[in-house]
Amino acid sequence: MNEARIRESFARQAFMGTIGASLGRIAPGAVDITLPVQGALLQQNGFVHAGATASIADSACGYAAMTLMPEGADVLSVEFKVNLLTPAVGTTLVARAQVIRSGRTISVCRATVFAVDAHGGEKPVLEMQGTMMTVPLP
Amino acid sequence: MNEARIRESFARQAFMGTIGASLGRIAPGAVDITLPVQGALLQQNGFVHAGATASIADSACGYAAMTLMPEGADVLSVEFKVNLLTPAVGTTLVARAQVIRSGRTISVCRATVFAVDAHGGEKPVLEMQGTMMTVPLP
Amino acid sequence: MNEARIRESFARQAFMGTIGASLGRIAPGAVDITLPVQGALLQQNGFVHAGATASIADSACGYAAMTLMPEGADVLSVEFKVNLLTPAVGTTLVARAQVIRSGRTISVCRATVFAVDAHGGEKPVLEMQGTMMTVPLP
Amino acid sequence: MNEARIRESFARQAFMGTIGASLGRIAPGAVDITLPVQGALLQQNGFVHAGATASIADSACGYAAMTLMPEGADVLSVEFKVNLLTPAVGTTLVARAQVIRSGRTISVCRATVFAVDAHGGEKPVLEMQGTMMTVPLP
Repeated sequence: MNEARIRESFARQAFMGTIGASLGRIAPGAVDITLPVQGALLQQNGFVHAGATASIADSACGYAAMTLMPEGADVLSVEFKVNLLTPAVGTTLVARAQVIRSGRTISVCRATVFAVDAHGGEKPVLEMQGTMMTVPLP
Repeated sequence: MNEARIRESFARQAFMGTIGASLGRIAPGAVDITLPVQGALLQQNGFVHAGATASIADSACGYAAMTLMPEGADVLSVEFKVNLLTPAVGTTLVARAQVIRSGRTISVCRATVFAVDAHGGEKPVLEMQGTMMTVPLP
Repeated sequence: MNEARIRESFARQAFMGTIGASLGRIAPGAVDITLPVQGALLQQNGFVHAGATASIADSACGYAAMTLMPEGADVLSVEFKVNLLTPAVGTTLVARAQVIRSGRTISVCRATVFAVDAHGGEKPVLEMQGTMMTVPLP
Repeated sequence: MNEARIRESFARQAFMGTIGASLGRIAPGAVDITLPVQGALLQQNGFVHAGATASIADSACGYAAMTLMPEGADVLSVEFKVNLLTPAVGTTLVARAQVIRSGRTISVCRATVFAVDAHGGEKPVLEMQGTMMTVPLP
């Protein structure tokens, strides 16, 4: 695992900066991404847009997969599937991703996004199951 | 189909404004959303982030479902699944969503996101299959 | 939870009998289904066919959802997604399903199918994430 | 495309024989599989079990991908996602799969399963979107 390489890659994900997401815990096979809730992220009813919530889950899955990849490898999302469990309301969202199976080419990951309320209470709002691919660094 | 209601709902999706997306064609069971490619949407290798691409597909699916819903109904994403076909590069992305099955509670939708190049050439970059739910207006 | 009702419904799932599956543990929000591996279930390379493996995961998810449904309700699969982690080889497959979110209409479930070898060792071979729907009994 | 090789592989998929499925049309990037409806395939309400329906869609997607693969390659399912559109009732089910994107390692496929009634009328009952992988022949 190369935490520095992952933090450097995340810093280059301009879209994560655009939505205000930041990288949290990095451990072998597991990565957290935090997203403060703000008006710019909402959909028509005042919930966080499913696309914004899925975006941090996707990046968290990708970097979780990358923690188990060899040096000189980059990661691409092959596919992912999300279920929206309940409207995403709160002060912050936290995506917690982990690798379920790490292969040479294909990694399977899961992430849960939790909505955190003002008292620190957590509630799962999205479940992702997806496939990440190891690719040579461009 | 109530096009005015859909355009008004889209205008309240602050997240679509944040990423620069705009609503295109609206027809019974079909909606297009356009997203000009800009640096703020990219991931670490200069492709549009899968989350941004999925976001316009999700909104397009939701509004496609809404075109077939009765007045006084709103739409929520139950779940969606995306395959990323090829890196999203181009000047604009266009999500084209259509309803595959419209039920009283549950609608099944598909969307393809195309990357459009400077010469107007189109290439599919993402395929979505998802489930939308009719909910009473809040 | 009405274990008798679930066992009776499973007994009417002729397809589970056709493939040789049997119902195991039933607990609130969780159901196991066991499938002895036999030649009739294999694909071209001698692994259990992904469709057979997915079938027990789907039934396990459905009945897990049913454990939390009111009397007089039946269950239908809305959608499911599976990742195949590794070829399914062994003496028995066991699908272990649990409810992640139980709603009035929609339940979200996950299942893992494990391949059990001759020494009782277990290895996950399939992960399912799916949506089940409560329907009135016909 | 090697039709003979695909027909030979299908003949070794014992599970397809177990459920009574047969291989129909084979064309570059497209394969059909037919499944006569019989009591042995049903679930508790008299509909074809979602697992049986998904099984023919999965095999059809795999062989559709194989039509575009080089000689000496075999196919494995990486993942698939299905939506069940309406209960599967009829005399026969037909899965029609096509390749959406064919890559060196990864192919993305879609299949629709139609229920055919006694008058030849067709109705879509399942939509699959999945990922197939090229693997060297064992």
